[in-house]
Amino acid sequence: MVRQAIIMAAGLGTRLKGRTAEMPKGFLEIEGTPIVEWSVRKLIAAGIEEIIIGTGHCAEWYEELARKYPCITLVNNPEYADTGSMGTLAICAEKARGTVLVLESDLIYDSIGLFVLINDSRPNVILASGKTKSGDEVYLETNSSQYLLMNSKNKDSLGSVYAELVGVTKLSKGTLDAMTAYSKSLLREKPKMEYEEAMSAVSRKALETGDEPIAVRKIEYYPWREIDDESHFTMAVNEVYPRIRESESLRMVRREVLLNPGPATTTDSVKYAQVSADICPREKEFGQVMEWISTELSSFVGAPGTVETVLFGGSGTAADEVMISSCVPQGAKLLILDNGAYGDRFARIAASYSIPHDVEKSSSHELPDVGRLKEKLLAGGYTHFAVVYHETTTGLLNPVPELCRFCGEHGITTIVDAVSAFAAIPIDMERDGIDFMASTSNKNIQGMAGVAFVFCRKQALEKIRDYPPRSFYLNLWQQYLYFSKTGQTRFTPPVQTMYALRQAIIETKNETIEKRYARYAGCWDVLVRSVKAMGLSMLVPENAQSKLITAILEPDSPRYDFEALHDLARSRGFTIYPGKLSDANTFRIANIGDIQIEEMERFVKLLSDYMEGIRK
Amino acid sequence: MVRQAIIMAAGLGTRLKGRTAEMPKGFLEIEGTPIVEWSVRKLIAAGIEEIIIGTGHCAEWYEELARKYPCITLVNNPEYADTGSMGTLAICAEKARGTVLVLESDLIYDSIGLFVLINDSRPNVILASGKTKSGDEVYLETNSSQYLLMNSKNKDSLGSVYAELVGVTKLSKGTLDAMTAYSKSLLREKPKMEYEEAMSAVSRKALETGDEPIAVRKIEYYPWREIDDESHFTMAVNEVYPRIRESESLRMVRREVLLNPGPATTTDSVKYAQVSADICPREKEFGQVMEWISTELSSFVGAPGTVETVLFGGSGTAADEVMISSCVPQGAKLLILDNGAYGDRFARIAASYSIPHDVEKSSSHELPDVGRLKEKLLAGGYTHFAVVYHETTTGLLNPVPELCRFCGEHGITTIVDAVSAFAAIPIDMERDGIDFMASTSNKNIQGMAGVAFVFCRKQALEKIRDYPPRSFYLNLWQQYLYFSKTGQTRFTPPVQTMYALRQAIIETKNETIEKRYARYAGCWDVLVRSVKAMGLSMLVPENAQSKLITAILEPDSPRYDFEALHDLARSRGFTIYPGKLSDANTFRIANIGDIQIEEMERFVKLLSDYMEGIRK
Repeated sequence: MVRQAIIMAAGLGTRLKGRTAEMPKGFLEIEGTPIVEWSVRKLIAAGIEEIIIGTGHCAEWYEELARKYPCITLVNNPEYADTGSMGTLAICAEKARGTVLVLESDLIYDSIGLFVLINDSRPNVILASGKTKSGDEVYLETNSSQYLLMNSKNKDSLGSVYAELVGVTKLSKGTLDAMTAYSKSLLREKPKMEYEEAMSAVSRKALETGDEPIAVRKIEYYPWREIDDESHFTMAVNEVYPRIRESESLRMVRREVLLNPGPATTTDSVKYAQVSADICPREKEFGQVMEWISTELSSFVGAPGTVETVLFGGSGTAADEVMISSCVPQGAKLLILDNGAYGDRFARIAASYSIPHDVEKSSSHELPDVGRLKEKLLAGGYTHFAVVYHETTTGLLNPVPELCRFCGEHGITTIVDAVSAFAAIPIDMERDGIDFMASTSNKNIQGMAGVAFVFCRKQALEKIRDYPPRSFYLNLWQQYLYFSKTGQTRFTPPVQTMYALRQAIIETKNETIEKRYARYAGCWDVLVRSVKAMGLSMLVPENAQSKLITAILEPDSPRYDFEALHDLARSRGFTIYPGKLSDANTFRIANIGDIQIEEMERFVKLLSDYMEGIRK
Repeated sequence: MVRQAIIMAAGLGTRLKGRTAEMPKGFLEIEGTPIVEWSVRKLIAAGIEEIIIGTGHCAEWYEELARKYPCITLVNNPEYADTGSMGTLAICAEKARGTVLVLESDLIYDSIGLFVLINDSRPNVILASGKTKSGDEVYLETNSSQYLLMNSKNKDSLGSVYAELVGVTKLSKGTLDAMTAYSKSLLREKPKMEYEEAMSAVSRKALETGDEPIAVRKIEYYPWREIDDESHFTMAVNEVYPRIRESESLRMVRREVLLNPGPATTTDSVKYAQVSADICPREKEFGQVMEWISTELSSFVGAPGTVETVLFGGSGTAADEVMISSCVPQGAKLLILDNGAYGDRFARIAASYSIPHDVEKSSSHELPDVGRLKEKLLAGGYTHFAVVYHETTTGLLNPVPELCRFCGEHGITTIVDAVSAFAAIPIDMERDGIDFMASTSNKNIQGMAGVAFVFCRKQALEKIRDYPPRSFYLNLWQQYLYFSKTGQTRFTPPVQTMYALRQAIIETKNETIEKRYARYAGCWDVLVRSVKAMGLSMLVPENAQSKLITAILEPDSPRYDFEALHDLARSRGFTIYPGKLSDANTFRIANIGDIQIEEMERFVKLLSDYMEGIRK
């Protein structure tokens, strides 16, 4: 797995002087976006967790970019004018923890090239192409097995030319170190060295010593362009970029905007993350992926070391069942707040296991009476309290922090279904007094369905260790214990869904949960403003709403037909969802997932046209 | 979802007379494979369930092809010489049940084109390209929204040329019918009509009437070639095919051969089946996908109407737990045969639910004593018997049909873990006396991990309807009931894993379970012969082995180190797996999944080199 990339972006770009006197070359724009930002997006989409950018000339432009993408780490090369690209690479390479992608900053390229490199089993691979006739080619000479021997801008200085260097390369930590050592050994003779020279020298040496040389992976018809001068830029914009765009567009998946309350709309990169080499999930490498997932999920809801996230194959309900069956011991007194289908579900789960429990019923569309609940919790001598954070049925947001903090003060263990709250509503389990909390891969975290998880505060988790299991598959402690001992899940996990979840986490970290919730809330604003303008009513008062799912009362018109509205919306690429309450006729619009405000605007236009139509 | 394709293959191919006097054009070979067979493979990989081929000239060649690919349905056009392609299409179109892909037979093309068409939300789409300069172009004229107006081989007869027709088109049933009607209306004037003419006429009419016209999807740089004469064939072989091969190779996933006992190696097409437009799994369309999956799975293990397959999100163990917790009522007497880790697992599941049960222990590497078991079943008055069909721990194949038929005769309900037996060992639940049987998506069926399923004989399923649920998530009757009532699973299913399973089923049907088991057994033969030649011993006697998983006793050498062997194999693209028994030191080689005999041959060479090395 390749987790880091290095972009060498220190250079002066002297041949584009007019444009780059006060700007790094990477900030040349195509379609309004700097070419280096295109590259950053492609790297993130390819599953890169951290992008290390080596800066020099006009570094402040990169500081701005790094504020936009939290995955960017900047490394400054103060001597960039004198060191050549190898100097910048050497400084960046200090941050490499394993195999990395190394890129030049002034490139445009088809993203398939990243897949090809990452997918290659060899640790060191140069991406190369057939003839570009660009006028600034770096030619590569290889041995008969296509391992790098020499590079040059002068064809005649090579024995033969196999391909042209693109400027996107996969290198192992060991090879990067060897390149650095090589350049340092020649520091006096060649203070200014290009990284290509170091690659050739290290690859030749490796071929002699039996170490891992650098392979050249040639794609004969590969659309790419390095931009060194004005003619390159023109060629990039007019000829190469359209080709890249077409090639990438062929792989784009049809956009369907899911306004149902999950599974939510996903990015194409999350979809494609499912396509990776077959792996036995008991391999260490895959254990590390799951450990990373678990740690990163924990870090969304707690300070480092305070929360353990335990992964299961199953839906959100499976995670709810894990909590109820694993965290409520014999002799406990469990109170369940039921103000929607998911509160009711907690009770049904408890009943399946014959776990004694009381249910506090509360209106499905009003905030529960917190004072009464607190009283009941104490008066009833309850030891456990189960509550749904965000009722998917109605969009009602329960006052979970207030209730759970109260429970914490009184030694009551709290069990929270945060299936459709997590990764949107800001949660800190310790601050909010939540002991156990369930969520799933396919809601606000924007991954694919199939992975459920239970967040556990560490001290709460320790307490359940001796509770006898009620279920074998859905047991929290055993699942936790086995993974912490072996780095493997007890049972075969949904491997590809895990990869998708990993990608979804990378993207969530880049967006940040705060900004994600702001985006969701922005879509909700558009929806609610429009719903009110249409004269429709919402089931839940605005101040009790999650801003994630909105239950809208069906219009009082004999011509209203949910199926017709659904089919109309679906024909335009929107999926909506009926209500789920027995006591109110609603339909629900969720605004979670990878959706944008303009899409919600298009949807409300459609909705309002429909409503107007049935009123005529 | 596009489920069918039509290939029009009746024509004479007169311009390739030397080659095609006694052979249809589609059987021109590139790299040893007929071009129409390339096309068939690409269609299957794109998720097409049925390929209808309209034959005429030398139809016997297609009869041969249809024997190789069970998804092919042949339709003969006896009047092919006089009807033109539209005549053949009209006959084939009678078999269309919905939207279909329509292809010419004499094409080579990049498979991305199929994805582009299927992924397009519009029902009628012609795949088209930029200029090919092939000398036999069908030019397309469109309106400003790129809907088809006219086609012609003569540029000058068109108002303008937007693109060139490739010969791969997506058409709705309605459009096909309209094309047929159009051609029939002109039968007298134009008995010989090409399908392009009918498309243009129908699209123009649709634009007038507001019906769905035919869109032209142009890929400017699309590698494809129709082969009508010798010069086309030369161009195809020398210029176009290498380009197609490179383009497709970029999307190929690194081959890792998993010799661990599942998850098994999958095809790239199963991997890519996970990449599809986002969908709410409560949409009818997705319900139909799951229903298809369920019906097709049932048909692998029983006559139509005798078996219901119930799908769950989870691993094989989840399905085992579903059976034990849902099918054994209060007051039942359950006997579990334990001769490996998975028999033991049955017992642990029963214990979690405090379900009374007895365990019959039997050697992990010898066939159980059937006589003794039968006696015990009767003497103990057991009502339920649980057994593992194929012990993944050892490769031991239990005599399940004999045991279960006996149970059937004595009214004992049988519960079978067939996780690693299903889709290799031929099973007929009725014949073999199996009432409930669990398996999973990621073993011999060659899909991705995440879907578990329970096969139920219908009369056995009916009996459990009133058993009180012990688990909410893992309840068989409720899951069955809800799906049969609503066409939805009770809980969010792993959507993308379902798509992968659908593709895996398509591929299993094309290979057939019989031939799949023969392929597996062929790999096992290679392994076993070689293991014996190395002087290694197997844990289980050959006659008791499944031919799917082989437990090999570790060599008696201090230099043997499983980790070293594992790492060596992994560096060469093979994943192997340790043993799991406490009383014998073994390692396990599975030969399930999308693996070929030559790969097993490469692996045994590696294994024998290693064994030789440690003996030196």
